[in-house]
Amino acid sequence: MTQDQSHPEANAADETPPPVTRRSFLEKALYGAGMVSAATIVGSATLAMKSPDGSAAQSPAAASDSSASMDMGGASTAPMSDMTPEEMDAAHKKGILDFLQNQKTPLTKGKGNQPLAPTVDNGVKVFNLTVDEVEWETTPGNVLAARGYNNAIPGPILRATEGDRVRINVKNNLTESTTVHWHGLYVPNNMDGVPFVNQDPIKAGQSFTYEFTLRNSGTHMYHSHANSLDQVNRGLLGAFIVDPKDPASYPQYDREYIMVLNDLNLGFTINGKGFPATDAVVAKKGERVLLRYLNEGTMSHPMHLHGMPMTVFRKDGWPINPPQMCDTIDVAPGNRYDAVVEATEAGVWAFHCHILTHAEGPQGMFGLVTAMVVE
Amino acid sequence: MTQDQSHPEANAADETPPPVTRRSFLEKALYGAGMVSAATIVGSATLAMKSPDGSAAQSPAAASDSSASMDMGGASTAPMSDMTPEEMDAAHKKGILDFLQNQKTPLTKGKGNQPLAPTVDNGVKVFNLTVDEVEWETTPGNVLAARGYNNAIPGPILRATEGDRVRINVKNNLTESTTVHWHGLYVPNNMDGVPFVNQDPIKAGQSFTYEFTLRNSGTHMYHSHANSLDQVNRGLLGAFIVDPKDPASYPQYDREYIMVLNDLNLGFTINGKGFPATDAVVAKKGERVLLRYLNEGTMSHPMHLHGMPMTVFRKDGWPINPPQMCDTIDVAPGNRYDAVVEATEAGVWAFHCHILTHAEGPQGMFGLVTAMVVE
Amino acid sequence: MTQDQSHPEANAADETPPPVTRRSFLEKALYGAGMVSAATIVGSATLAMKSPDGSAAQSPAAASDSSASMDMGGASTAPMSDMTPEEMDAAHKKGILDFLQNQKTPLTKGKGNQPLAPTVDNGVKVFNLTVDEVEWETTPGNVLAARGYNNAIPGPILRATEGDRVRINVKNNLTESTTVHWHGLYVPNNMDGVPFVNQDPIKAGQSFTYEFTLRNSGTHMYHSHANSLDQVNRGLLGAFIVDPKDPASYPQYDREYIMVLNDLNLGFTINGKGFPATDAVVAKKGERVLLRYLNEGTMSHPMHLHGMPMTVFRKDGWPINPPQMCDTIDVAPGNRYDAVVEATEAGVWAFHCHILTHAEGPQGMFGLVTAMVVE
Repeated sequence: MTQDQSHPEANAADETPPPVTRRSFLEKALYGAGMVSAATIVGSATLAMKSPDGSAAQSPAAASDSSASMDMGGASTAPMSDMTPEEMDAAHKKGILDFLQNQKTPLTKGKGNQPLAPTVDNGVKVFNLTVDEVEWETTPGNVLAARGYNNAIPGPILRATEGDRVRINVKNNLTESTTVHWHGLYVPNNMDGVPFVNQDPIKAGQSFTYEFTLRNSGTHMYHSHANSLDQVNRGLLGAFIVDPKDPASYPQYDREYIMVLNDLNLGFTINGKGFPATDAVVAKKGERVLLRYLNEGTMSHPMHLHGMPMTVFRKDGWPINPPQMCDTIDVAPGNRYDAVVEATEAGVWAFHCHILTHAEGPQGMFGLVTAMVVE
Repeated sequence: MTQDQSHPEANAADETPPPVTRRSFLEKALYGAGMVSAATIVGSATLAMKSPDGSAAQSPAAASDSSASMDMGGASTAPMSDMTPEEMDAAHKKGILDFLQNQKTPLTKGKGNQPLAPTVDNGVKVFNLTVDEVEWETTPGNVLAARGYNNAIPGPILRATEGDRVRINVKNNLTESTTVHWHGLYVPNNMDGVPFVNQDPIKAGQSFTYEFTLRNSGTHMYHSHANSLDQVNRGLLGAFIVDPKDPASYPQYDREYIMVLNDLNLGFTINGKGFPATDAVVAKKGERVLLRYLNEGTMSHPMHLHGMPMTVFRKDGWPINPPQMCDTIDVAPGNRYDAVVEATEAGVWAFHCHILTHAEGPQGMFGLVTAMVVE
Repeated sequence: MTQDQSHPEANAADETPPPVTRRSFLEKALYGAGMVSAATIVGSATLAMKSPDGSAAQSPAAASDSSASMDMGGASTAPMSDMTPEEMDAAHKKGILDFLQNQKTPLTKGKGNQPLAPTVDNGVKVFNLTVDEVEWETTPGNVLAARGYNNAIPGPILRATEGDRVRINVKNNLTESTTVHWHGLYVPNNMDGVPFVNQDPIKAGQSFTYEFTLRNSGTHMYHSHANSLDQVNRGLLGAFIVDPKDPASYPQYDREYIMVLNDLNLGFTINGKGFPATDAVVAKKGERVLLRYLNEGTMSHPMHLHGMPMTVFRKDGWPINPPQMCDTIDVAPGNRYDAVVEATEAGVWAFHCHILTHAEGPQGMFGLVTAMVVE
């Protein structure tokens, strides 16, 4: 152990704890939870960064002069070639600290992919969707002209149970026509949402009601099928989760995360946000975490989880027999996968698309990057 | 049911049938077969559009002035940003109507992927292929300098049975060398078709005879292996189907569709044609439809079938155990998949690559798009 | 058999052997091992080209004037549009002959992906890695500014057995920070190598020691996780093979080939080299050849083996049950696959990425191309 820097776990107990400053606290929490349990900084659903005295931790980045010339907000995808090594390290660090900060106080406005409770009309579960032009902040300061269901990207999570009858009232607030396709679901032909094939388009200002019975469970999607490259890609997308009638037919899990992947016009995003504005996947040690992947983009995204393997057991809602273990799962456009992770390894683990042009540049990580935090 | 437009199937029976005009007829046929069975417009193998009085239906698009300034022939892949909502709807509709029209009277010249009956010489099945420069119309009016076996793209379907001996006489009518590789087949080394590895190239004007015994069944391919990026991509490709010796080893099916996917130089095409010039997949309700996917292009194409799942049971001709159900199958270059669809859902169902840059723009659908029609 | 050129195997015995010249010797060896066994030209691990009199064969290409204006060194990926058919054939042939020559005497300087024997310290297997700026020759004459572990691309093969404890001393000789991530391995959190998440970056000139116990067997990877698009893509990558504790849990094999795929900054490479500078996969007839695929690049690479199917039985080190046979395997970034090939078919077989833009142009094959040689 004569190296300049050394953190082998075998020797962790031998190290003299340094004075706990805000910064070293964070670093200790991150670097393997040696001195401080990751649980300390993790709330029930999101990372809650607190300093030992209970006050909110403030990242150096957040405290820095916002007029600083080097703003590595994470939105840029082009490598920067003229950074010094010190600038690169600082930029990488800022991204991580911003990400931690984002778990406590969101760095961007707007949050998509939220549950939407249906009303019930004569046994039919009724959801109301508006189709809206929105200004959407994907990463701090990066506000884009986008479109969203109920003003959010992704739209609300529509969720019901196999056998349920659902009605979705759609009001088009765009200035152009739209429709909604229920990707993966069995539906009557006139509910399938392809303009001039299954229905007339829903013109600007008009409404349309979809109604059908859920015949197949699974991780499904809903999205525009009119001018869809533009409409879907700029935000008219969401998750449609159909739980099985017999819960025993589905693996047990303690936590569930839905990850809607997208790219192109709004950049590389998970649930409408690019790193560092992405949400962490959080679990207590020993829990089973369900990950639902949905690719609404135009490129394949091989998602790599550090630290623990994933067990993939459904594709497009249909069973994979036997389930396939892996650490990297290639999710092609239109595809969905359900995977379970046994949260056996404590700490903060990187979790990202392994196409590095979608995830990291000289200024640090961006885009399709988050972390799994095991308390 | 106070929405502006509403087609929930529960209420379909309550609607007063509107007067049947040519246009409403088509729309009714398309929008879920409510008033008119899809069977009415579907012939045994292709969509046969007829008006109720038996005369051929003429799409508004086909009747319109061909000198109109807005030609949405489907060949363009670049989004158009300056269309009005009305123009976009009209363009989308024209695409669908053109596609229907194409099922009755092809909109483009030339049809590839056709069966080629062998002659038999002393028990050997003999196929003759020419390698030709061709002008190939991929979408209406879009004629490209291409190459094809027997003047077609894809070349003829070569088909025989496991255990058969086949001979393929190849005559090179190009001005440059070529060879043929039998992608997926066991062949003797000197029949494998890689220039200077397995044989001398077949020079311009020369011929070469390939001969081998079919040792493995499956959905295979044949294509050039000389200057192959250019030669294959511009059309020197075809399906080679080897039926198993024991038919009981292969799932039963009622209809079979071979889908050769391509991209790049000739645009996004299925069997040499881009939407709306693509052929529909047609089946009667209850039939089992075999889909054979072959990717001869340079990009992955996740093909998404609306309405019904696919059961994928062969990859590259080898069994997938157990078969995998899905609604979107990612077909990578060089890969082949055999899938069966149970045609349980009546109506016209969109069927397309889910990389939306390969399938839809502001002017409507194009490229890797077709439909499955269940009567 | 009235064709201009004809090589059906049925008639091979009837042909009068032509005089054996250097050139015809090579061609006969290549074209199906008709006259001369492939064994004659294949050494134990690499192709050893010898002429019948025992002297080293010299390819026409190698003997040609190196100042010739048409240099088809294999590095170019852009199609050349102004070649004559004769130039194209000559360029294709030169590539094949160069490839054969490369098996005897490497055409490029530098060889990566070599075993590194650990020292043992109190039962811990110790590996030393330096992180270096290197000039790396990917194809003849194409020397690029790159980075490598121990001055090679890929870095040395790190190999140990499940249950082993390993220590890797890393010395950073770059002018910027780096870290090492052990892709696919269970490691303690502070050993996972993501800067500011798991550790401080290893600054220029500094060192860091990683130490952990190997908990899961498989074909894994190690690579930079700092400025990783640039650092990994320009060479900071290598294979980490963990053999299972119980050898009986892994299929038997006679030969093993590790194929690290990469693209982008250093071009399309297998183990750091582009065709014709790639190594052949060599086996004796009847042997079982283990192929380990590792994609360290930014694009999927569907690798197609001519002649014989592959049986894929591990993904990311985890079993695939049952194994899947195929002739083309789509390897996405970050993914690893283990496959076995039964070397039943004698001869030289092309073996390449089936995205043809990664493999062939008018000047012949380049990039992600090699061959499997079965003696």
